[in-house]
Amino acid sequence: MNTLLNQSFSAATAGVSLLNDALRLQGIPAQAVDWTPPLGGKDLHDVMADSRRSAANELALAKMLSSGALLVDVKPASEALNLGRGEFLHAGPPIEWARASGPMRGALIAAMLFEKMAGSAHEAEQILEKNGVALEPCHHRGAVGPMAGVVTPSMWMFELLDPSTGNKSWCSLNEGLGKVLRYGAYSPEVIERLDWMRDVLGPLLQLGVRAREEHIDVRAIISQMIQMGDEGHNRNRAGTLMFLRDLLPFMIEGGSSTDVARAARFVGGNDHFFLNLVMPACKLQTRAAENIPGSSIVTVMARNGTDFGIQTSGTGDEWFIGPAQTPHGLYLGNYTAEDANPDIGDSAITETAGIGGFSMAAAPAIVRFIGGSVPDALATTRRMYEICEGENPTFGIPVLEFRGAPTGIDVTRVLRTGILPQINTGMAGKIAGTGQVGAGLVTPPMEAFTAAIAGLARRVI
Amino acid sequence: MNTLLNQSFSAATAGVSLLNDALRLQGIPAQAVDWTPPLGGKDLHDVMADSRRSAANELALAKMLSSGALLVDVKPASEALNLGRGEFLHAGPPIEWARASGPMRGALIAAMLFEKMAGSAHEAEQILEKNGVALEPCHHRGAVGPMAGVVTPSMWMFELLDPSTGNKSWCSLNEGLGKVLRYGAYSPEVIERLDWMRDVLGPLLQLGVRAREEHIDVRAIISQMIQMGDEGHNRNRAGTLMFLRDLLPFMIEGGSSTDVARAARFVGGNDHFFLNLVMPACKLQTRAAENIPGSSIVTVMARNGTDFGIQTSGTGDEWFIGPAQTPHGLYLGNYTAEDANPDIGDSAITETAGIGGFSMAAAPAIVRFIGGSVPDALATTRRMYEICEGENPTFGIPVLEFRGAPTGIDVTRVLRTGILPQINTGMAGKIAGTGQVGAGLVTPPMEAFTAAIAGLARRVI
Repeated sequence: MNTLLNQSFSAATAGVSLLNDALRLQGIPAQAVDWTPPLGGKDLHDVMADSRRSAANELALAKMLSSGALLVDVKPASEALNLGRGEFLHAGPPIEWARASGPMRGALIAAMLFEKMAGSAHEAEQILEKNGVALEPCHHRGAVGPMAGVVTPSMWMFELLDPSTGNKSWCSLNEGLGKVLRYGAYSPEVIERLDWMRDVLGPLLQLGVRAREEHIDVRAIISQMIQMGDEGHNRNRAGTLMFLRDLLPFMIEGGSSTDVARAARFVGGNDHFFLNLVMPACKLQTRAAENIPGSSIVTVMARNGTDFGIQTSGTGDEWFIGPAQTPHGLYLGNYTAEDANPDIGDSAITETAGIGGFSMAAAPAIVRFIGGSVPDALATTRRMYEICEGENPTFGIPVLEFRGAPTGIDVTRVLRTGILPQINTGMAGKIAGTGQVGAGLVTPPMEAFTAAIAGLARRVI
Repeated sequence: MNTLLNQSFSAATAGVSLLNDALRLQGIPAQAVDWTPPLGGKDLHDVMADSRRSAANELALAKMLSSGALLVDVKPASEALNLGRGEFLHAGPPIEWARASGPMRGALIAAMLFEKMAGSAHEAEQILEKNGVALEPCHHRGAVGPMAGVVTPSMWMFELLDPSTGNKSWCSLNEGLGKVLRYGAYSPEVIERLDWMRDVLGPLLQLGVRAREEHIDVRAIISQMIQMGDEGHNRNRAGTLMFLRDLLPFMIEGGSSTDVARAARFVGGNDHFFLNLVMPACKLQTRAAENIPGSSIVTVMARNGTDFGIQTSGTGDEWFIGPAQTPHGLYLGNYTAEDANPDIGDSAITETAGIGGFSMAAAPAIVRFIGGSVPDALATTRRMYEICEGENPTFGIPVLEFRGAPTGIDVTRVLRTGILPQINTGMAGKIAGTGQVGAGLVTPPMEAFTAAIAGLARRVI
């Protein structure tokens, strides 16, 4: 001891500044290291010490990697999900009208008008205020919905099957950008478009899907689009085109040429159309990893515009909640950051499955839609590997020499590194009726992960 | 002088090893630099000293960058090019039957059968041997043809217009991969497909193109595909899908549903279909830069399977020729390097216009088709900037932070650096009738560039 203290020495310090300050005052060279203790405290310790965890997480990853996603049908939500009149689904964790944000309220109003449960927005609001409609998260039915994610019985749904588990997942048809229900708009053009989708587009897609002998393999298309500059959340351009290529010949053979031409223009004119197939494919991937005791892998990340909720494999369908953050990015027209609602939608299921914000290195051109720089996009994907259990070789990122997408967010890694999952997302106007105001980047609140680690700790045997 | 020699010194030597050896024998540290004198000798000196050159090359680049490419019509070559019975076009510089390679001969045989100018391959060969058909390069008519590039009067052609110059360019319709005329195959399936393309596909494409109010902007699609993992020579997947999206609704409205569905499957099933639109768009780009006195910018690179020919802006339509090299890459099925014919086709017009091999950084996934590694693909694009006059902001490469494609190959830079243009290409079997055997990488022969500098030197005032 004496020998050490009698020598001249230099020191590195970590944590609180007290020690560093004391050394420097005594003239001793001391370098402060940027370090903070991991969040999660004793809960994190208990989960890390859980002997089941390592094997459980490996199993969760393996199940994700071996999942599939075939488009098996297109049909109304009333048939697909047994959704009855007066039952609406929505994005994110559970919410009631009183706490709902502007875009969620706008979408619910649009849904009331579309279902002819109200004759005016005012009447719709009055019914919704009195909780005259049963609201339930999409995720509770195995479904997913972008942005407000409102699903009503008359909306047509894509039905996807994972042959590895027999699980199914569903998502409504994408309406395009701008003034649309999912961004909270409810003007007559919104309702007219939904009417056409119900009466023409849905039945035509059903006809095409049912006429094919082989199911469209949505996962295989995702694998291709990752090689074509799409990341599957805010770029779905190549995916949309491949979907059209695979389905349109069957629609041409079976439908009226006027209707098919209009449908082809509608789908082809909406680069995001395929998002509503990517999302249920990602849901099937994470669903395959659900309910593995001891696993700290995240299976759901979803937002309702007010709360951000996550679920983990080891904690089943329990929600862990924190406040939804407001994205930063690029704004449409004259909109500014002031106009943006906090984060909303089930589309973060893409990041939960390793694409979207996690695979932005595959889609450098996306920075022109969501902001940031190309090096940022590459750095983001590299950073996400630090919080993931593994990599998905099916989603190989060309510029990273086909390294697989970072897959299987591990709650313990998020807490130990302090790195939050990177989500890229559309931004809804915070006032009901506005529609989309931009697109950008956002992270979940850390509170959701500290709550999740507590939930996992409670279940340690 | 004495002062210098009396000091101790170290030396760097360049060129022949004599000086370096002598210094080392005298115990003086000497570092040999890897350097060879530029090729081209006095011709290069004379061209470099030409006072017109700098402004002429700037003008050539400016004209390339401001060129456009609109798809204005689809019609038979007999109408589009006034091609008469017994007149065939082919790829590359001029060639006669006696010196033609296997795939060129195979394609000419297929053309004779397709035009019903012969009842059998044997009869076709006999007629061709006696020069019973007038052969002329596509480039002599402002057209371009992939691989053998054989065009006959009954083949349908895309007709593209450059509004900046009023120039037009043409290319036949892409037949798909494998057993096809342009790779030298002439079996019944090849001719049957050509018959269907003449009778059904061509007229349907014409109907669609003529029904559109606005012309399809091929250059704008190229700009998009560069952001979607295509480089426009051996990857045209996104381009093909965007073309289908833009044209199909009009075909659906005007055509028989059975025919349109088959056409949609044919085009959608052939990721290279759009190559035959990229090529004439590139031809219009380089054609805009033709005939500028003093310019050393390359305006044509083309191969007929035997010779590789180039043309430069300052030398008009004079061909500068060297032997076509054999590509190296990946082979289909059981084929090997032994089966590959030397380089063939007008498709190197893509590299002449700055895409294809020059923009491989935009298409890292292409290494799985042509061989090499992802870092190679990025390094290739970076290397090509060294031999180009400038960059094309319309073709921004996302991973290089949207840096424009390297554009305007300067013969003097090729000779001064020793860097040859990098071309990626399909490989035809060297035996007539084989079809495609692979895809890979190739460069032009340096002889074409030394011949071109001599041609430019002769024209220095």
